[in-house]
Amino acid sequence: MNPPHVVILGGGFGGLAAARALRRAPVRVTLVDRQNHHLFQPLLYQVATAALNPSDIAAPLRHLLRGQKNATVLLADARAIHTDRRVVELVDGELAYDHLIVATGATHSYFGHDEWASRAPGLKSLEDAVEIRQRFLLAFEAAEREPDADRRRALLTFVVVGAGPTGVEMAGAMAEIAHHTLASEFRHIDAASARIVLIEGVDRVLPAYTADLSASALDELHRRRVEVRLGARVTRIEDECVHIGDERLPACTVVWAAGVAGSPLARTLGAPLDRAGRVVVDETLTIPGHPEVFVIGDLAALTQDGRPVPGVAQNAIQGGEYAARCIARRLRNETVEPYRYRDLGSMATIGRNAAVVDANGVRLTGPLAWWAWLVVHIMALVDFRNRVFVLMQWAWSYLSFGRGARLITRKVPPTLISRDDDRDDDAPSKPADTAAATR
Amino acid sequence: MNPPHVVILGGGFGGLAAARALRRAPVRVTLVDRQNHHLFQPLLYQVATAALNPSDIAAPLRHLLRGQKNATVLLADARAIHTDRRVVELVDGELAYDHLIVATGATHSYFGHDEWASRAPGLKSLEDAVEIRQRFLLAFEAAEREPDADRRRALLTFVVVGAGPTGVEMAGAMAEIAHHTLASEFRHIDAASARIVLIEGVDRVLPAYTADLSASALDELHRRRVEVRLGARVTRIEDECVHIGDERLPACTVVWAAGVAGSPLARTLGAPLDRAGRVVVDETLTIPGHPEVFVIGDLAALTQDGRPVPGVAQNAIQGGEYAARCIARRLRNETVEPYRYRDLGSMATIGRNAAVVDANGVRLTGPLAWWAWLVVHIMALVDFRNRVFVLMQWAWSYLSFGRGARLITRKVPPTLISRDDDRDDDAPSKPADTAAATR
Repeated sequence: MNPPHVVILGGGFGGLAAARALRRAPVRVTLVDRQNHHLFQPLLYQVATAALNPSDIAAPLRHLLRGQKNATVLLADARAIHTDRRVVELVDGELAYDHLIVATGATHSYFGHDEWASRAPGLKSLEDAVEIRQRFLLAFEAAEREPDADRRRALLTFVVVGAGPTGVEMAGAMAEIAHHTLASEFRHIDAASARIVLIEGVDRVLPAYTADLSASALDELHRRRVEVRLGARVTRIEDECVHIGDERLPACTVVWAAGVAGSPLARTLGAPLDRAGRVVVDETLTIPGHPEVFVIGDLAALTQDGRPVPGVAQNAIQGGEYAARCIARRLRNETVEPYRYRDLGSMATIGRNAAVVDANGVRLTGPLAWWAWLVVHIMALVDFRNRVFVLMQWAWSYLSFGRGARLITRKVPPTLISRDDDRDDDAPSKPADTAAATR
Repeated sequence: MNPPHVVILGGGFGGLAAARALRRAPVRVTLVDRQNHHLFQPLLYQVATAALNPSDIAAPLRHLLRGQKNATVLLADARAIHTDRRVVELVDGELAYDHLIVATGATHSYFGHDEWASRAPGLKSLEDAVEIRQRFLLAFEAAEREPDADRRRALLTFVVVGAGPTGVEMAGAMAEIAHHTLASEFRHIDAASARIVLIEGVDRVLPAYTADLSASALDELHRRRVEVRLGARVTRIEDECVHIGDERLPACTVVWAAGVAGSPLARTLGAPLDRAGRVVVDETLTIPGHPEVFVIGDLAALTQDGRPVPGVAQNAIQGGEYAARCIARRLRNETVEPYRYRDLGSMATIGRNAAVVDANGVRLTGPLAWWAWLVVHIMALVDFRNRVFVLMQWAWSYLSFGRGARLITRKVPPTLISRDDDRDDDAPSKPADTAAATR
């Protein structure tokens, strides 16, 4: 008889932890992901801001599980889950399971304005990160060639929506690049004059942290000349303009880091969802009537001690390990205890020498927090090679103020470089023959 | 009065060398490129084969020239050169020049079959390299899921067309990855059984090298189980099949590394072109009637001592420096001597511990040549940071047999993963429920 088949959907922190925790269990494991790599998402903003290479924060799933004989990696796209037949529907086939662990995570939410997605990309995948990096770097290139002063201003205005950890880290990193790394490299613009605007709906940055850490992060953002707009909402996004409440802010580059929306796969489970589309799970992380279907990580909506469990890597990892343990115990006919998320603390970095850390009542800010952040993230990087390389690149950036991965690798759209209308006389003082003249 | 304006088209080895050589000249320099980065093209195949990251072999042009006050970098697309009006036509404007250095290089030639380009991409840009890396890695993923034995065979057959340095290096690297790096990571296929087929029209590999070095390279390729077909021509490329002469070879992945075609910009110069579309220049690297227009590097067709000057980085660099020297001397009303290419030797690597070197009569093969290749390439890498990182990654790959940059970052086309027809009974022995069943 074949050993029971455990299918894991998603190779993020939760899925990978579950697969690994099943290495000694008498089961066959199939880990399904649309991508061939596990991604260290907390550092994704560093790819978006040209500090790290895509491969520094990603490792092939196949490579990570190569030594685990009971595990198979499948590069495939899951479309639906048929809990009645215990089958996962793929784009090009089906996959039967005995136990299922759904770990497909969540993405950002545009609060009903999905049409904003192309203008204001979120940061969830390596493609997103490279796309944002291109837009960010191209904006400076376009500004260098732009004779119209207003449009130049809009090109050098960068808006980050949402001041959670990702938004704060993005804004801080963008400010450092504009004000330090690029400062001396352009001839017609002053990169240091770039505006970084961080927009948050509630009244403080890092709302999930304690009030004094929020205040400290705000200080650090101000010190980096990030303009923080609290209690502000984006009401409209146009081609080169963001509306904040009633204000119209000309800005060509917008990054979205707000809201939460569960992976669409959740809707096919037939289980109750919360308003953000996450699956409401019971205390064993399973769905009603299906003890063989676990939902873990960001996709699970779970409250503990009256507070929602946060969508952080630690919760995904602990959930994955818990689900694996439950499956192993059930195969031995043992009972399972309820899931308990153990908060190991949270941290966010604002930039060079500045971070906030909150771990079991210990709160750190400034350089000490930054070094703590660095050590924790280096240690957590999945495979050893990445650790070495990330450490090297950080050391380099730290010592040189440089950024190693400033590449624009797609074909440059001519429209981003220059427009043929709306010139005015306030053009930067450059020799007439280097300006792009209208034909 | 404004100082004379020198426009350089192309930020490769030649263009960059010219810009730098003009740093003390009383001129304004504008370096125009479609990309924001200088690319170290000789190592591009290492990105295509997942050994290096794109940013390891590329550096922003703006960063490289940031300290040179008389130089401006322009991210722009040149469409035509009007030598009569001394103007470069950009996609979105014009650029007047007093002196022009055309260094836009050459690409591969499909010998009149441009329709093959999408099936058999060449290797000229970072996008090309990432595209080839994706195709190469995806082919193994697709084979892992493919139940049809014939199609699995085609997925695991990789064809490289052209056995010049790029083709030899690609084939050698592909063989090492398939036979070592990936060997233990798949469950249903044996990656080590992959076939790498190298096709060359003439009767030996590395035809520009001496006969004994060609023979040595062929030995090393055989040792790596690369199938070399000499005196063979590609007559047709279909969707999953390459025709070599009358033979039909099922192969899903084809890389093109044959032929030379000058940049299309050359056609707008009004100067004589050779059959490959390169500009026939005189002994001062200028075109007839226009001593102010230099053509350097791969785009120039030049014979010296009865032999064509090869399209190598050294010729581009020496040409760029020569053009800069000519411009500076003319401004002082001094005469210019004819250009002489000084052959510093050529080298190619076949893989781990195997290379061939031919430098002024000194010929090396095997490990010694490989180490020489390594030192020369590390020293030649443009900026210091890249040197350190490339060296680190190579050290890592050398010690671990691993490859650091094995990322598939685009959305995976479902068609590449599996087809719904043509199943047969010779499928790999995998549990029925992990096979992609036809719905």
